[in-house]
Amino acid sequence: MSEQLWRKNLINITPYVAGEQPKSDKIIKLNANENAYPPSPKVRQILDSYKPEDMRRYPSADAGPLREALAKRAGLSVDNVFVSNGSDDVLATAFRAFFNSDKPIVYPDITYSFYPVWCDLLKITSRTVPVDENFHISAQSLYGQGNGGVVFANPNAPTSLAESREFVRDVLEHNKDCIVIVDQTYVDFADAGIDCLDMTKQYDNLLVTHTFSKSRSMAGMRIGEAYGSAELIKYMLAVKDSYNSYPVNRLSIETGVASVEDEEYFQATLRKVITTRESTAEQLKELGFDVPKSQTNFLFVTHPKYKAKDIFEFLREKGIFIRYFNKPRIDERLRITIGTDDEMIQMINGIKEFMQN
Amino acid sequence: MSEQLWRKNLINITPYVAGEQPKSDKIIKLNANENAYPPSPKVRQILDSYKPEDMRRYPSADAGPLREALAKRAGLSVDNVFVSNGSDDVLATAFRAFFNSDKPIVYPDITYSFYPVWCDLLKITSRTVPVDENFHISAQSLYGQGNGGVVFANPNAPTSLAESREFVRDVLEHNKDCIVIVDQTYVDFADAGIDCLDMTKQYDNLLVTHTFSKSRSMAGMRIGEAYGSAELIKYMLAVKDSYNSYPVNRLSIETGVASVEDEEYFQATLRKVITTRESTAEQLKELGFDVPKSQTNFLFVTHPKYKAKDIFEFLREKGIFIRYFNKPRIDERLRITIGTDDEMIQMINGIKEFMQN
Repeated sequence: MSEQLWRKNLINITPYVAGEQPKSDKIIKLNANENAYPPSPKVRQILDSYKPEDMRRYPSADAGPLREALAKRAGLSVDNVFVSNGSDDVLATAFRAFFNSDKPIVYPDITYSFYPVWCDLLKITSRTVPVDENFHISAQSLYGQGNGGVVFANPNAPTSLAESREFVRDVLEHNKDCIVIVDQTYVDFADAGIDCLDMTKQYDNLLVTHTFSKSRSMAGMRIGEAYGSAELIKYMLAVKDSYNSYPVNRLSIETGVASVEDEEYFQATLRKVITTRESTAEQLKELGFDVPKSQTNFLFVTHPKYKAKDIFEFLREKGIFIRYFNKPRIDERLRITIGTDDEMIQMINGIKEFMQN
Repeated sequence: MSEQLWRKNLINITPYVAGEQPKSDKIIKLNANENAYPPSPKVRQILDSYKPEDMRRYPSADAGPLREALAKRAGLSVDNVFVSNGSDDVLATAFRAFFNSDKPIVYPDITYSFYPVWCDLLKITSRTVPVDENFHISAQSLYGQGNGGVVFANPNAPTSLAESREFVRDVLEHNKDCIVIVDQTYVDFADAGIDCLDMTKQYDNLLVTHTFSKSRSMAGMRIGEAYGSAELIKYMLAVKDSYNSYPVNRLSIETGVASVEDEEYFQATLRKVITTRESTAEQLKELGFDVPKSQTNFLFVTHPKYKAKDIFEFLREKGIFIRYFNKPRIDERLRITIGTDDEMIQMINGIKEFMQN
């Protein structure tokens, strides 16, 4: 075999280690913040009436019908909405479109793990600011003349905490020279007064991202969206077109529209998840856990007497998968997705069993 | 309104102007090389039996079931197959994974229009080599010690022409120090002895890309694939994971598997398209057109007496959409997708009418 010089041109990248995706139907999967309930029953109707012969045609290049449905629901114009292949794709597109400064972008130290990954891949310089001892973000820490951009999740993950609209406004007022991305992945589970989507009408440099993977129970269909000024959206479409003209397939567009148009089912599902979240939080508190007020579909808990990792491993042995992060500052915490009431009972029983051992 | 400095950090990009995507059902659409026939009827069965509650879960991160089906069909291991969100996404991932040399990558001057776009976006230096006066690629022109990589489509578009396996081998033997990508988007429509997929077993630096958008009638579902050594595929998976963990949705994976497993329908559809292609080519020759031997699902034609642009515009007025490229070297050519026999009759009648005017 000759010397293979082509290897020196391979990208310098550390292969990502994916989280556990256990396949058995018998396990209880509370580790990916997936929704406990199915998507709108209207989705079944779409599949029933779908004509497979339409698959031979390319889809709408901009997922037009879904942009229209989302714009209508948000009271915005279609020019203010971008849709792509999951919110990871939306966020990566936004990073590429907007974070081209030689100044670093800023994000909290405890947040979505992909922000540093994209910075690395897209050669964007960045700096992190620490969340406080209660895992809240400090608005002041994000102020900046020297910011190349700002991105934070609100509510944040894995902390489950939300900052107020006033917080978002404060950050925007102190970042008029760069683009601010607010990742609202979990906002539908939050209290009224957190969502800042409407602020895109006032701040041309605000981009709000969202996803169908959590509140809309459609992680499997890969749909993410962003809202912003027509100028920002135009740039995102241009980046999208330069990379992949047709990122969203026909069935995701059509089932996505069906979901957006079924507001009643959507709200009912949110209420069920929130009700279960509150009762689960109470039960965990009764067991001695510290449970910060979650504004998401998961809890971020710790117990003064027991090691988070031990609880995580004990539950895993029983087929109950929650999330443990072996990372600084959060290695004594567990992230538990809100499942059905029955799944929560089994999870709580598993923890009780652990405590009795 | 304050001065908005954030605009200086917008990406420097020229918004792409998409090709015409006429929406009326009455038009005859022969401008995107979509298949004239629907996908396998097994796809309908998948939709019938699909449980929407599964959508709440993330899909397989690597589109595993589809990788397995494709590997089995190709006589390869699953480690030799990569699947992502359309072949544009596959090719962009490959460019990012493999074209990291400071030497330029090389591709023909007349070929798929996205190669230069990705080079621009990913800051990859490149040089083009001219196809000959008959639009064939010269193997020698791709030889190189100085190549950072090589990419060509075989069969090529919009030329419709294929080079032989010996050509591919020749290019590989003279490019042992870089990665060679052979884009086989149209290969299923080509003669036996063109497909070089099996050469990935022999050449560790060969990547073959393919798509479900043409021969499998599934452009609307956004599925593309690549075949190569386990080492190359591992790097593509790492790049994919760094960008978007779950690029292929559940229904594309499942309908894709159904398509791959229905070889009989696939071959029957290919035969229909090829039969129509050959009869259409004969009719166009009888009308005086120059029609190079197509190895694809389209024809790349010119007429000595009539301007390509005039024919294109005349047909468009009649609701028949073919493709005209206002570009050097090919601005006297038309690219006509092979539709159904009925669509071809209407297209030929349109041209006859044009000639009589």
